[in-house]
Amino acid sequence: MKYPEAIQNLIDKLSTLPSVGPKTAERYVFYLLKQSEEKIKSLATALNELKEKTKICTHCFALAEKEICTICADKNRRAGILCVVENSQDLAAIEATKQYDGRYFVLGGLINTINETRPEDLNIRKLLARVKNEGIKELILALNFTLEGETTSLYLTKILKDQLKITRLAKGLPAGSNLEYADELTLGNALKYRNELK
Amino acid sequence: MKYPEAIQNLIDKLSTLPSVGPKTAERYVFYLLKQSEEKIKSLATALNELKEKTKICTHCFALAEKEICTICADKNRRAGILCVVENSQDLAAIEATKQYDGRYFVLGGLINTINETRPEDLNIRKLLARVKNEGIKELILALNFTLEGETTSLYLTKILKDQLKITRLAKGLPAGSNLEYADELTLGNALKYRNELK
Repeated sequence: MKYPEAIQNLIDKLSTLPSVGPKTAERYVFYLLKQSEEKIKSLATALNELKEKTKICTHCFALAEKEICTICADKNRRAGILCVVENSQDLAAIEATKQYDGRYFVLGGLINTINETRPEDLNIRKLLARVKNEGIKELILALNFTLEGETTSLYLTKILKDQLKITRLAKGLPAGSNLEYADELTLGNALKYRNELK
Repeated sequence: MKYPEAIQNLIDKLSTLPSVGPKTAERYVFYLLKQSEEKIKSLATALNELKEKTKICTHCFALAEKEICTICADKNRRAGILCVVENSQDLAAIEATKQYDGRYFVLGGLINTINETRPEDLNIRKLLARVKNEGIKELILALNFTLEGETTSLYLTKILKDQLKITRLAKGLPAGSNLEYADELTLGNALKYRNELK
């Protein structure tokens, strides 16, 4: 054994984190060894509380502290509009823009023919019920512009387009970008979806 | 608040690890959320036990499980030779070569005029005592080839060279290296310290 057991054990456990190898885990452990006992204990407590204190909102399936998340419970949020996202990270990314005042719906994945994620594996049944019961007028599809995201968008559009207005995020050039370095597909989209200046 | 408290709290705590920013910490937390309760608890336990179960060897100052580390306690290790390293990571790196069968001594740092690490801040007094009491014949200085490592090597050589043989790690080209891409200093050293083929 390379290191004392307690050290090696923590290195092994941290090595299972995404893109953390034994060398990185070793750095983390030797950093932690230099920290106060109190700081390490508080990290352990935060880990212990992670799953205990995290719930899934029964209304929109986002990660929440209570049965209903703060956004679903917020009376000031605009009704009649719903933003469909893949997961809670994407929800947080849209919230960070401060441009949207409606509520969300977390699909819990995207349709994927390779790993066999089918529409029935996602929260689509609940989405259909909400659209019907809450009189939703517009559905914003905020899904990745990948094969899986586009497939899911197409699927949702197909089953819902007769009931309400469906929109998706704009395709175009990212903020601060340089035309010279944009790839053809992005530039092509920017041209195709060009906006009129008024 | 971006995420539920338990999630945000763990993100904040993990962000303090070396070269981990909020985005990386977020990835770790969402990965952990997908793991079993049991796996997360075992990580928390490993953290709690890190400092409790880790001791410093009273003989060589390496990280250890007991009062005396396994290397100092090992009767089969060659006596009369001591390898001086900066810290326990460097010790582990040398052990991994399986080329050394003597014992070690961990200095606990290097002389540094900028952050004012002076010789008296290191475990040098204990080193001198061991050299004297154990009849050490050779001291291998396995310190970094940096300004701090060289300063410390020079200092130790100065105070100990009359008492025993002092050696240091070889300077030269790394294994599998290409002369074309070697920097001048490395190639210069490889030439200066060339070995005779017998």
